[in-house]
This record gives sequence, C-alpha cells and structure tokens, in this order.
Amino acid sequence: MQYRLDAFNGLIIDANSLPPNREAFAPALADLLDQARREGRNLIWLTLPLALGELVGVATAAGFIFHNCLEEELTLVWRGAPTAFAPFVPTHSLGVGGLVLNDRGELLAIRERGSQGYKLPGGHVELGEDLAPAVIREVWEETGIQAAFRAIVGLVTTHPYRFGKSNLYVVCRLAPLNADIAIQDPAEIEDARWLALPDYLADPGNSAFNRELVRSLIHSEGLRPSDLNSERYPKAEVFFAQSSKD
Amino acid sequence: MQYRLDAFNGLIIDANSLPPNREAFAPALADLLDQARREGRNLIWLTLPLALGELVGVATAAGFIFHNCLEEELTLVWRGAPTAFAPFVPTHSLGVGGLVLNDRGELLAIRERGSQGYKLPGGHVELGEDLAPAVIREVWEETGIQAAFRAIVGLVTTHPYRFGKSNLYVVCRLAPLNADIAIQDPAEIEDARWLALPDYLADPGNSAFNRELVRSLIHSEGLRPSDLNSERYPKAEVFFAQSSKD
Repeated sequence: MQYRLDAFNGLIIDANSLPPNREAFAPALADLLDQARREGRNLIWLTLPLALGELVGVATAAGFIFHNCLEEELTLVWRGAPTAFAPFVPTHSLGVGGLVLNDRGELLAIRERGSQGYKLPGGHVELGEDLAPAVIREVWEETGIQAAFRAIVGLVTTHPYRFGKSNLYVVCRLAPLNADIAIQDPAEIEDARWLALPDYLADPGNSAFNRELVRSLIHSEGLRPSDLNSERYPKAEVFFAQSSKD
Repeated sequence: MQYRLDAFNGLIIDANSLPPNREAFAPALADLLDQARREGRNLIWLTLPLALGELVGVATAAGFIFHNCLEEELTLVWRGAPTAFAPFVPTHSLGVGGLVLNDRGELLAIRERGSQGYKLPGGHVELGEDLAPAVIREVWEETGIQAAFRAIVGLVTTHPYRFGKSNLYVVCRLAPLNADIAIQDPAEIEDARWLALPDYLADPGNSAFNRELVRSLIHSEGLRPSDLNSERYPKAEVFFAQSSKD
C-alpha cells in the first residue's frame, strides 16, 4: 500500500492503493503497522469507500477506530500512542429558525404534523448549504412565505442530541416579501399562519421554551452579514454583531 | 435479530441481538431485508460496535451506506426507496475564538508554532462541551489568561472544511481576570502576548481576514447568555442578541 506523511507525524494511506479484499489487505496492513510502530508514528489515517466495506473489519481487528464518515466513505484512525490526537471530528448538526414578523406585528408560525403548539418555521441546514439560504428555504417550504435575511438574533447549542452528537440552532430575523401562506410541504407541516404576537405568547399550547425565545428576541438587533462576505472569502459565511459605535 | 419500529416507518436493529460473526449475520440480515421490502419500510438503522467491525462489510454488500459514527460505534442505514430520508447527520465541527482586551485596549493574541502572524486564541469545542467553557479553556491553555465570558460577537460558517464537512466558528468577547501570560501548551503555541490594537491591525504579517475580523468586532456588543440558561433547560446553551428596547 502507498501512503503519504501528514504534518503531524502521521501516515495517510492512499485510497487508490488499497487491496481489493480482506485476504490481501490484512497482511499489507500488518506490515504498515509494524513500520509505523518502528518509526514512532502518531496516527494512521485510513479512508475506505463503500465498495471496500469488507476491509473495515480487518482494520478494527488491527486496532483502528472510527473517525468520521460520509455516506459513501468511512475514515478510521489508528493511534500510535493512547494520547495521539485525531482532530476536528464533526460534532454538530445545524438547524435554523426564522423569526418573521409582518407589518401588523404578527408572527409567522407553523405546527408540525402530529405535534401540539406552534413554533418558528425552520429546519436542518444541509451539508454544504449556507445558513442564510437555508433559513429562507425552510421558511418558504413550510409556509410559502418568501423572505429576506436580516440578522442572526439567537444561537442555541444542545448536547446530547442525536447519535451521541450535538446540535446548534441559529435563530434568524427575516423580513417577509409576501403575505399569503401556501404550505409547500404538507406531509410535514399541518398548519402555518400569522399569529398576533400576544396570542402566541399567551397560549399554553405553545411550549414555554418557544414562547420565551420569541419574547426575548422580538426586539433584538443581532448579528448581521459582514462585509467579509465577498469573493475574497468564498468559503466563509460571516456574521458580525453590530456595534453601538458603528 | 430483534428490532423496533421508529416513528417514520423505519426499523431499528437491536444492537444486543447482533450475531457475533459474518457467517451468522449475513443470512439474518438477508431475512430482515426481505421482510422490510415486503412491508415497504423506508429505512433500516444498524449500529455496530467496534468489536463487530467485521459485520460492516456484510451490511455494505447488502446495500447499507454509512450514516454517522462515534469512535467506538458506526451507524449504517439501508433505504427502502431512493428518496427515503435519514435525518440529521452531524455536519459541522465547532471552533471558538476569544476576543480579549485589557484595560489598556491591548488585544490578547497568539502565534501558533510554525505559523506566521498573530491571531485570536481559540480552538476546537470538544464533543459535549459547551461553547462558553470551551473558549475560556482554550484562552487559558494558549495564554495562561483566565477570563470571564461576556458575549458572542461573531459567527463564521465555512464549507468545505475537513472530511467533506463544514466548520462553524464563534467569536466570543471575554474579560481578562489576570494579566501575566503563561502559555500552558507550548507544543502548539509559540508566542502569546498583549498587542496594542493599532499595531495588530497595521501589521501585514497578520492575515487580512483576521485583521478585518478584529477591526469589525472590537466595539460590538453581540449575543449574550440568556435567562433560559438554567436548570429548566440543562441540555441547552442559549445566547440572545440584546435588544435596543431591553
């Protein structure tokens, strides 16, 4: 098997050089581990495509642990010492909620099928999707309201969430561009409506958490997209709190 | 194998009922897939512990794909239809940076070993760690400065980041509680110091991105921990933007 060195005294096995079956992989991996031990390597990175799933068992039997995965590939690591550090495993799913108020001070709220009470429209940010387009998309899918992004007004982290990992929820203020509700995703959303704010806050059918969240954020200004969002930094989506001195 | 139904027409295989080797697992899984197809199931969830790594290849050969993993367990899914949706895969690693200014208006800045230029102290939020304690810990490890959390003042999402996933970076304003720098982690951090703000901003050795970030945030007020952070919601860490009407 071929490999290259990383910047932290580790080895990265070349996925293109993987033997095609367990019988050939087991001795090749044993040789590589011997060499890594002799050289005092901290870490070995092994990324296996779905089609070579049968090699996973060989690696775990040799002391590799799971590190991260995409749908069609799994990365495992072997540590040269118990304290060897494999960095930056994804830990959070990211959700967004839209705080959308119309000119009459009514709040855009939805009820999920099978749920009690109304909540902010919103949902999961897809892998690779930016935060602002995600909340605009979710609000539209759940209510038919097109809206413009204004600011991040709240941020919630939750742990534990699902699969032993964490969730991060970002509440965004949006300005509605139309008024007529038309649910695009009726399988998930049972009802969507503009609710007078005092009615929403007073209704014990809505969760105490959601009511406190809305009450706390209703007049806030929050973080806004930064001037750094430009072609200079195409991979980054940046929000900055506004200054009292701006 | 035993299983239970989930709320979305899916099956969750009971990890305690897994056969101990490939020879027993393959026919049991084939039977379960036949049954799932007959019943029109959307999804089958299969979580394998590290010790049963050899079963991974049986599952991938049967059409399972990787869904998520912890170090010692891997979850795979089988879709009953191409559009069947397996929700909420963790997509983001979470980093924090500390914006720490002393009474003389000096910025606490560090230089990583092998890097050019000074940047905010900070690092990775560990799985399960809350954001505020994480930034306090990182600032202390990198500078020896103990600090109190004040507010979130910036938020950056980046995609692609590592392993095909995304990163979220949260900039936090902290108030220093001591003045004397004492790097706790000299293997990573080559230098830490208080820098006069104009000097930091003017130095072309510091990246343009970091200089613009500091310049933009230096007077901002940002999001603050909410009253919702209490025993009522022990899993949530909540930050709200402050309102001009508060």
